[in-house]
Amino acid sequence: MRFQALMAAMVLAACASTAAPEAGAQAQVRSLGEILEQSPQSDWRTVDPENTIYMDLPAGRVIIELSQTFTPEHTRNIRELVRAGWFNGANIVRSQENYVVQWGRDEDDPGPMGAATATLTPEFWRPRRGLSVTRLPDPDTYAREVGFVDGFPMASNGRDAWMAHCPGMVGAGRGDTAESGSGGELYVVIGHAPRHLDRNIATVGRVLQGMEILSVMQRGTGPLGFYEDEAQRTPIPRVRMASDVPAAERVNLEALRTDSDTFRAVIDSRRFRRESWFLDPVGRVNLCNVPLPVRVRAS
Amino acid sequence: MRFQALMAAMVLAACASTAAPEAGAQAQVRSLGEILEQSPQSDWRTVDPENTIYMDLPAGRVIIELSQTFTPEHTRNIRELVRAGWFNGANIVRSQENYVVQWGRDEDDPGPMGAATATLTPEFWRPRRGLSVTRLPDPDTYAREVGFVDGFPMASNGRDAWMAHCPGMVGAGRGDTAESGSGGELYVVIGHAPRHLDRNIATVGRVLQGMEILSVMQRGTGPLGFYEDEAQRTPIPRVRMASDVPAAERVNLEALRTDSDTFRAVIDSRRFRRESWFLDPVGRVNLCNVPLPVRVRAS
Repeated sequence: MRFQALMAAMVLAACASTAAPEAGAQAQVRSLGEILEQSPQSDWRTVDPENTIYMDLPAGRVIIELSQTFTPEHTRNIRELVRAGWFNGANIVRSQENYVVQWGRDEDDPGPMGAATATLTPEFWRPRRGLSVTRLPDPDTYAREVGFVDGFPMASNGRDAWMAHCPGMVGAGRGDTAESGSGGELYVVIGHAPRHLDRNIATVGRVLQGMEILSVMQRGTGPLGFYEDEAQRTPIPRVRMASDVPAAERVNLEALRTDSDTFRAVIDSRRFRRESWFLDPVGRVNLCNVPLPVRVRAS
Repeated sequence: MRFQALMAAMVLAACASTAAPEAGAQAQVRSLGEILEQSPQSDWRTVDPENTIYMDLPAGRVIIELSQTFTPEHTRNIRELVRAGWFNGANIVRSQENYVVQWGRDEDDPGPMGAATATLTPEFWRPRRGLSVTRLPDPDTYAREVGFVDGFPMASNGRDAWMAHCPGMVGAGRGDTAESGSGGELYVVIGHAPRHLDRNIATVGRVLQGMEILSVMQRGTGPLGFYEDEAQRTPIPRVRMASDVPAAERVNLEALRTDSDTFRAVIDSRRFRRESWFLDPVGRVNLCNVPLPVRVRAS
């Protein structure tokens, strides 16, 4: 099929490797799939079930990892909200084109909060000091330094560091004041990274599985993509912490360690596109274009 | 609703303005909606029906503007293909998460080509010289210079200039060699800008209306998001040039001129987020985060 020609350029996994396009280069070029297949087990980490959310939607399961490193208070509070049942019976209330999909509860229909608090100290950034960063060398529009920390995309001004609003990142809605969020309303980025939200709101985690369920939600026709008719909302029957699910029923996910040699090879393979389809190998990569590989643990 | 608090940050139009967050700043801050409402008619251009495609899908109409400035040969060839009926009976064949949606015909079921040619000279870039660019001042990961030309996002290395792969941009698939594309297979960017495709393939235009139809196409489960089952494809019953549609049935679109004072005010409003919700007004904007306003002409 002619389609496959374009596709060869766009593969993110499992594509057969080809010789490098540079004149005279004959070195074996590994595809992303090959890089991952050849990785040692020690380059992968088990995603902590205490930081992992299963959100069951009519179309399937969405799995989210919360960050202990950047937003420990939000992670703790969201865990409490999940355990109290806050999100059971919540809805997808908004789907805005090239922006975010959002879910939560109406103010006049609050859920049980258990030990969670209604507002939280802002965690829009944390000190850069103390973080082990796998840096990217290319310029970024919004921050002096970008890279990866503990599985998440990071940006920094040298003093502060925060998780960047890349596609698939999950944030916690807030009101007009900094401390007005609880984690009881969440959104996920579905379009070109809205990095202007960085430092203005807390990104709390990342969708590890199920983005293809969230991103195709019919766009809302109200302002900001809110659904005008409540019937257009998608109900959320059940949300659980993975650690509360019987071990036999869990999806045991492993994430590639972002401080590993394998991940550095992934970055290199995305900066230099050596597949034969590429006429210009690029030599640059944006923070939000680096894949963060996840796999199901072989049992 | 608590949701509206977060939303205030995310509005792309019609949001009430508020005082600037800077200490002592009392100047009136105009929302994007107000900037557009107050714009003179001369800051808008009529989109040329000879460069405008109507693609009618079961869920509604998608309207695409082709670029005469960057890809005149592709624009001419695609116009010929549309007029010959090449796309009538084509299908959406691919929907890849955070990447592209693609349509065309199978190799074993070609359509009529009329006066179109099967392959085209590459138009992956053109000379920078001769272009009037509304520049953005902030750094870009992929190019030395970025800005806007004749309604499209542009990147340049100083010598060459090309249309950047921002969300909503339409490109022409090709095979393994540079001259193997015809415009008979098209894709649209639905995720974080895959700028590594810049200079490797021809972007030919932009979706002006209907992105919300394309972006929610169920993701394909085959490699690269191709549909494994032909029944999952979306048929494309009819594609026409706007100029071939009776005037009374046209959607008369106007696009904000990217060399206008109004558009410069739009850029400024996106670089500095002065809405009260923003605690950090940002001061930067990425090429692909600047909206390119379109409206229906008041008749």
